[in-house]
Amino acid sequence: MTDLTPRPEDKFTFGLWTVGWEAVDVFGPGTRPPMDPAYAVRRLADLGAWGVTFHDNDVFAFDATDAERDAALTSFRKALAETGLCTPMVTTNLFGHPVFKDGAFTSNDRSVRRFALAKAARNIDLAAEMGAETFVMWGGREGAESAFAKDVRSALDRYQEGVNLLCDYVVEQGYDLKFAIEPKPNEPRGDILLPTIGHALAFIESLEHPEMVGVNPEVGHEEMAGMSFAAGIAQALWAGKLFHLDLNGQHGPRFDQDLRFGAGNLRGAFALVDLLETAGYEGPRHFDFKPPRTEDDEGVWASAAGCMRNYLALKAKSAAFRSDPAVTAALEASSVPELATPTLAEGESLATLREETYDIAGMATRGYGFEHLDQLAMDHLLGVR
Amino acid sequence: MTDLTPRPEDKFTFGLWTVGWEAVDVFGPGTRPPMDPAYAVRRLADLGAWGVTFHDNDVFAFDATDAERDAALTSFRKALAETGLCTPMVTTNLFGHPVFKDGAFTSNDRSVRRFALAKAARNIDLAAEMGAETFVMWGGREGAESAFAKDVRSALDRYQEGVNLLCDYVVEQGYDLKFAIEPKPNEPRGDILLPTIGHALAFIESLEHPEMVGVNPEVGHEEMAGMSFAAGIAQALWAGKLFHLDLNGQHGPRFDQDLRFGAGNLRGAFALVDLLETAGYEGPRHFDFKPPRTEDDEGVWASAAGCMRNYLALKAKSAAFRSDPAVTAALEASSVPELATPTLAEGESLATLREETYDIAGMATRGYGFEHLDQLAMDHLLGVR
Amino acid sequence: MTDLTPRPEDKFTFGLWTVGWEAVDVFGPGTRPPMDPAYAVRRLADLGAWGVTFHDNDVFAFDATDAERDAALTSFRKALAETGLCTPMVTTNLFGHPVFKDGAFTSNDRSVRRFALAKAARNIDLAAEMGAETFVMWGGREGAESAFAKDVRSALDRYQEGVNLLCDYVVEQGYDLKFAIEPKPNEPRGDILLPTIGHALAFIESLEHPEMVGVNPEVGHEEMAGMSFAAGIAQALWAGKLFHLDLNGQHGPRFDQDLRFGAGNLRGAFALVDLLETAGYEGPRHFDFKPPRTEDDEGVWASAAGCMRNYLALKAKSAAFRSDPAVTAALEASSVPELATPTLAEGESLATLREETYDIAGMATRGYGFEHLDQLAMDHLLGVR
Amino acid sequence: MTDLTPRPEDKFTFGLWTVGWEAVDVFGPGTRPPMDPAYAVRRLADLGAWGVTFHDNDVFAFDATDAERDAALTSFRKALAETGLCTPMVTTNLFGHPVFKDGAFTSNDRSVRRFALAKAARNIDLAAEMGAETFVMWGGREGAESAFAKDVRSALDRYQEGVNLLCDYVVEQGYDLKFAIEPKPNEPRGDILLPTIGHALAFIESLEHPEMVGVNPEVGHEEMAGMSFAAGIAQALWAGKLFHLDLNGQHGPRFDQDLRFGAGNLRGAFALVDLLETAGYEGPRHFDFKPPRTEDDEGVWASAAGCMRNYLALKAKSAAFRSDPAVTAALEASSVPELATPTLAEGESLATLREETYDIAGMATRGYGFEHLDQLAMDHLLGVR
Repeated sequence: MTDLTPRPEDKFTFGLWTVGWEAVDVFGPGTRPPMDPAYAVRRLADLGAWGVTFHDNDVFAFDATDAERDAALTSFRKALAETGLCTPMVTTNLFGHPVFKDGAFTSNDRSVRRFALAKAARNIDLAAEMGAETFVMWGGREGAESAFAKDVRSALDRYQEGVNLLCDYVVEQGYDLKFAIEPKPNEPRGDILLPTIGHALAFIESLEHPEMVGVNPEVGHEEMAGMSFAAGIAQALWAGKLFHLDLNGQHGPRFDQDLRFGAGNLRGAFALVDLLETAGYEGPRHFDFKPPRTEDDEGVWASAAGCMRNYLALKAKSAAFRSDPAVTAALEASSVPELATPTLAEGESLATLREETYDIAGMATRGYGFEHLDQLAMDHLLGVR
Repeated sequence: MTDLTPRPEDKFTFGLWTVGWEAVDVFGPGTRPPMDPAYAVRRLADLGAWGVTFHDNDVFAFDATDAERDAALTSFRKALAETGLCTPMVTTNLFGHPVFKDGAFTSNDRSVRRFALAKAARNIDLAAEMGAETFVMWGGREGAESAFAKDVRSALDRYQEGVNLLCDYVVEQGYDLKFAIEPKPNEPRGDILLPTIGHALAFIESLEHPEMVGVNPEVGHEEMAGMSFAAGIAQALWAGKLFHLDLNGQHGPRFDQDLRFGAGNLRGAFALVDLLETAGYEGPRHFDFKPPRTEDDEGVWASAAGCMRNYLALKAKSAAFRSDPAVTAALEASSVPELATPTLAEGESLATLREETYDIAGMATRGYGFEHLDQLAMDHLLGVR
Repeated sequence: MTDLTPRPEDKFTFGLWTVGWEAVDVFGPGTRPPMDPAYAVRRLADLGAWGVTFHDNDVFAFDATDAERDAALTSFRKALAETGLCTPMVTTNLFGHPVFKDGAFTSNDRSVRRFALAKAARNIDLAAEMGAETFVMWGGREGAESAFAKDVRSALDRYQEGVNLLCDYVVEQGYDLKFAIEPKPNEPRGDILLPTIGHALAFIESLEHPEMVGVNPEVGHEEMAGMSFAAGIAQALWAGKLFHLDLNGQHGPRFDQDLRFGAGNLRGAFALVDLLETAGYEGPRHFDFKPPRTEDDEGVWASAAGCMRNYLALKAKSAAFRSDPAVTAALEASSVPELATPTLAEGESLATLREETYDIAGMATRGYGFEHLDQLAMDHLLGVR
Repeated sequence: MTDLTPRPEDKFTFGLWTVGWEAVDVFGPGTRPPMDPAYAVRRLADLGAWGVTFHDNDVFAFDATDAERDAALTSFRKALAETGLCTPMVTTNLFGHPVFKDGAFTSNDRSVRRFALAKAARNIDLAAEMGAETFVMWGGREGAESAFAKDVRSALDRYQEGVNLLCDYVVEQGYDLKFAIEPKPNEPRGDILLPTIGHALAFIESLEHPEMVGVNPEVGHEEMAGMSFAAGIAQALWAGKLFHLDLNGQHGPRFDQDLRFGAGNLRGAFALVDLLETAGYEGPRHFDFKPPRTEDDEGVWASAAGCMRNYLALKAKSAAFRSDPAVTAALEASSVPELATPTLAEGESLATLREETYDIAGMATRGYGFEHLDQLAMDHLLGVR
C-alpha cells in the first residue's frame, strides 16, 4: 500500500488559526485554550507539514505594543527556525475587531478604510520579512446584510483603490510578493463582495497590476454556493490566477463548516486533487479548516493529520486512475481528449462549418459513456479496482 | 395611486418561450398546447409590452425546411409589424435537441461543436435581419454531471474559440450586434460552465473582442447559488457589461423555478429595480419566466401582466424611497454616500495613513444605523409610509 | 393609514438574548456590551412589547452562586413588575457552555446528560415561578459533525427518556407548563437531531405525554432547509401542536441569519401572518432575531421595533386581502375553498368513485387561476390595490 | 478483494421508470427511445437484480384500453416469469398526466381527487395481483407554487381522507399490502406537502391505520433539503416505519438529480449502507435514479450496474469498519456505546440528578475523539487501511 506519510516535499501548510481555533461560535464560548504559535509550529512539524501561514493577530494581539509584538514574533520565529518550517503565505486580520464590523477596504466609514490600509501595509512588511510569497486578502466583512446599506459600485471602487495602493506599495518596496483574493459568498455578512472565484477573477482584471493579483479559493466557500470547486479551480488555472488555495470540507449550502480536507464532499475532493496534480500546480497545499468544537488538543492534531493523509490518499488514487488503461480507453470513448482539438482546423472558417453536412441522427443518438467513466473513477476512489 | 399600466417606453420585453411554454417537465408532459408566435406577439402587445425575444426554434422547428422557416418567419413578422413590437434580442437554441446533450460549443464531440457554431451563425444573420441589438448565449448544456467527463480548461478553450469566431463573424458582416452570455450554475447539467455573473465577466476578459461581449444575468440563476442578484448586477454594471438581463423569481437554492417577476424574493426584486432605475440602465426590461403548469391561456397572460405590474410598482416605490428626506438622512447617518469618497485624498499615500492616529474605540462602537435604513426601505416597499 | 403602534394585546414578546446579543460570531468578538436584563425589559416595554422570554443564563451566569442568581432575578423581576411585562416562555441554555459541546440530553457522555436534566429541572422550577406557560427546548448541540460519532437511534432513545422525565416532573409538581421543541437542521452542529417541524412532530408522538409537548418552530430554521415556513406551521396547527413560535428572517439555505421579522423572505412572512391571524393562533408573537453586528444600542431598538411594525403591517394587509371581494372570487375560481369539501360524500365509497365517469379532458385543460390569485396577494402586500 | 457481483439475495430492485427514462427534461425532449418493460426486466436480471418496481403507466399508457393494458401486462409478466424477478413494490402515477397538475389526493378540484383515488385503487388491485408487499405513494404534485393557492390544513385533511380510504380498501380486500409515503420538499411543485421524512412520519400518526403506513425515503429528496439521509433513515427505523427506500445520489440543495447510488454524497452513502446493514433492515435495496441524458442504452446499464456495485462495495467496507479493533476502541473512546445506557439508572429520579456533584471542568475539557473516529471511517471508505 502507498505510503501516506506527509513529507516536506508535499508542501503541506496550515494556518495558525486552524489548529489554534479556540472553538468560539455564535452559540457558545471556546472549548479549547489559546494555543501558543510556537507550539503549533512544533506539532505541525512533527506531523510532517512544510509550513505555516498566519494573520498578524494570530501571533500578536490587535492592540499589542511594539514590545509585545516583537516578543511574540521572536518566539514564533524561533520555532520556525528550529523546525525548518517556512511561512509561504501571510495575511492580515481585517475582520475580527469590532472596528471592521462594516468591512475594511470597503467600510462606509472612511476612517476605517484608512486604518485598514495602514494595518494591511504594516503586515505586508512583515510578510516580506518572513519570506512569504503570497499575501492573502479575505474580505470577510466587506458586504452588507441589507441592500441599501452598501453601494456596491462604490464599494468596488474602494476595493479597487485599496488593492491598487497595496500593489503599488509592494512594487515601491521591491517586495517579491503577490496578492491572492479569497472569495466567499456570505457569512459573516449577509452578502459578501466578490462572492465567488469568478467575481474575484473579473475584479482582478480591473486592477492596475492584474499580474500581481490572483485568487485564493477555499473549498467550502464555493460549495456554500452549490458550485463545483474543481470546476472553479480549473477556471482559475485557465486564467493563470491560482496563486494559493484553501483546502477543507463542507456539506453544500449551509454555514461555513471548515471540516478537515476530505470530509464533506469526498468525490469533489478527489476531482480537485486529480486536477491539482495533473495540472502542474506547484503552490502549497494549504489547509484552512476548524477542528470541531468537540475535540481537545489530541483531537486537533488527529484532525490536522487527517487533512494531509486524505490528500495523499487521493493523490495516489489519482495517479492510479490516470495510469489505468481502462480509464484511458473510457476517456477516449467519451471523447474527453477530443475537446482539446480546436473546433476549426487551420484554414477553416464559419463558412466551412455552414457548408458541412452533419449526421444529426448520429450525433443525437451516440452515447457519451460518462457513467462508465465515472464508475471507473469511483472504483479507484473506493480502492475496489 | 401611481398608474401601473405598462407602456412601450417602459421597454418591457418577453421571450416567446415564456408565454409559449407548454409546461413539459421531468415529471409530466405539457398542459398547454403549442402557442403560435403571432398570437403571443398580439397578446403581449395588448398587455403593453414593447418587444419580444426568441430562439430560432421558438419560431420554426429545428428541422424545418427553408420553406417552413420562411413561412413561420413571415407570419411572425406580420404580427410584429401590425403591433409595432420590436425584437431587441434574439438567441439560438443550443440546448434542446438531443444533439446538444453534452453541450454545443463545448461538447466533447467536435462535430457537435461545428454544427453548433453553424447553427448560431445562421441565427446571427436572422438576428441582424430582425434588427436585434443583442444576441444572448445561454450555454445550458455546456457542462457535466461528473468531474472526469469534461476537461474544464479545454472546454473554456473551446468556448473562447467559439465566441471569438462569432465575434469575428459579426465584425466581418458589419452587424450592429453585441453578445451577452447568460450564466447559470446548474440544471439541466450537474455543473454548468460559467456558473455565475462573475465567472462570465472573467471569461469575457479573455476574449479577442471583450468590448463586444457582456452578460445577460437572470434573477433565478444567481439566486439558485444563494447570491444577491442586485449585488451581481451592480458588479456587471461596474464592469460596463450589463448588456441585457432576465427578470423572474426564485426561492433560493433549488430547481429553476422561473416564477413571474416579483414572486420569490420580493425584497431582492425591489433592490434590483432600484439599482436599474438609479444606475441609468437603458436596456430592455426582459422577462424570462414560466407561467406555472397549473395555468391555462388566461393564467399565462395574468402571469405576464403581473411581471410588468410588479416592475412598475417597485419602480414607483424606488422613486418615493429615493426622494424621501428621512431616507436621505438615514443614508447619510449610515455613511452610505461616504463610500463614494476615495479613501486617499489627493497627494496622500499609504505613508500618510500609517502615520495617522485613529480613534479605534470610536470606530469600533459607532452604530451604522443599517436597521433603521432598511426599515425605511421596507416601509416604502410595503406602502406603509 | 392603519395604526402600526404595538400594543400589549398584540402579544409581542422578545427573547432577552435577542436585543441583548453582544454580536460575537465565529469571526470576531462582540461589538456591543452586555445588556442588563432590566434595561432590556424597560426598553421593550417602551416599544410596546407584551412580554419577554429568557434562558436561565440570560439573567444569571452559568456558574452563578445562589446569591448572585437571586440578585439577578430580583433586579429582573423588579423591571417586570414596574413595566407590567410578562414572561410567557422560559427556556434553559443547554448549548453554550463547553460542557454541552456534544449535546445535552443526547451527549454521548452520560454525566453530561445527567447534568443537563438537572439544569433543565431547576429552570423548570423557575419557569413555573415566573408564571411561564411554555418551556422551550432547543437542542442546538444535540447532533454530530460526522455520521459515526452519534448513534441516532440511541440518541432518540435518550431524547425521549429526557423529555419523558421532565414531563413527569411537571406533572408531579403540578406545574401548568407545556413543552415546545424547537427544530433546526444544522448549525452549530453539522446535523442536528429533530431537524424540522416534521421530525419534531413525529418524535412527540412517541412520548409518554404527547399532549404536553408541542413545537416551537423558527422561521429561519425551516427556511435554512429550503422549506415553506407557513406550510410547516400549517402542519403544526393541523396537528394541534403549535405551542409557541420564533419569528425572524432568513435568506434560504445558508448560515442562521436571525434577521428581524420581515427581512429575508417577505412574501413568506405575509403568508405566515395571514395564516396565524386567520387560524386563530392565540399564543405570543415571539421574536427571536439578532440585531446585526453593525448596530449600536440605538440600532438594536430600531431592529426590535421593526419586527413588531412589520408584523402589524402584514396583519393589516392580511385583513384587507381576506375582505377583498376580488380575492374571494379568485379563491373560488381557483377552487381553494373546494378543498375543504370531503372527497367522498356521505355514503360514498371507493366503489362509487371507480364507477364514476370523469371528464379527463376538462380536468386536464382547466386553469387554476393561481397566478391571478397570487398577484392579488402581491398587490395587497405592496399596497398598490 | 471482495466479490462485488450482485446476487438475488442482495435484494436489489429497480424502478422500470429509472432505466426506462427517455431523458425528457424542462429544456429538451428525450434522447432515448421508449424501453419495453420486458427488455428492462431481462437486462436487469442479467445484471443480478432481484426485482423490479413500477407505476401503472410505466407498463401501459394512461389511456390504455383494457385490451392494451392486458397485452402490456402479459408481456411484462412473461419476462418476470422467465427471469424469476419479483415485483415487491408497485405504485401509481398520480403526477404525470395534466389532470394532476394541481395534485391528486389534494387537488383543489374535487373531481380530480375522486379520479385519483379511483386510479390508485385500481392499481392497488394490480399490486396485490403482482404479489407486491409495498405500495408507494409519491405525491409529487401535491403542493403549490404560491401560498394562497393551497389551504394546507384542508389539504392534509384530504390527504388523510384519501390514505384512510385506501387503507380501508386494502383491509376489506384482504390484501397483504402496506403503504409507504415518499416525502419530497419541492420540484415539480414549488412546495410539496409532507416535505421530509419527519413530516410524513408525523402525518402517519394521524391516520386510522398508522400500522399500515410507513415511509419510502429517497436519498436525494432529503439531501435537497440539506439534511443527512442516514440520520433521517435512523429516525424512520426508530419509529418502525422504514417500509421501503429509494437509493440514488444528489449534490445538495438544487434540482433533483437522481444520480446513480454512490454518486453525489459518497460519505453519506457509506453511513447509510452501514446503518441499513447493521440495523437489520430487510427490505429491498431499491434504486430510483436517472441515467444521465448523455447516455445511450449501454450507458443506462453501466449506470444501473454501478448502483449495485457501489452498494456492495460500501457494504463490504461497513463490515470491515465494524470488525476493526481500532474502530471498536475509537467508538469506546468517543463514548458512542455509552449513549445506549439510560441516563437514569433503575430507581433514580430527577432528584437524584439534582443532588449529584458534577465534574464540570472535566466534562467541559474532555475530548470526544470524533475526528480520529471519522478518519478511521474515511480510511475504510478509501480502502487505505
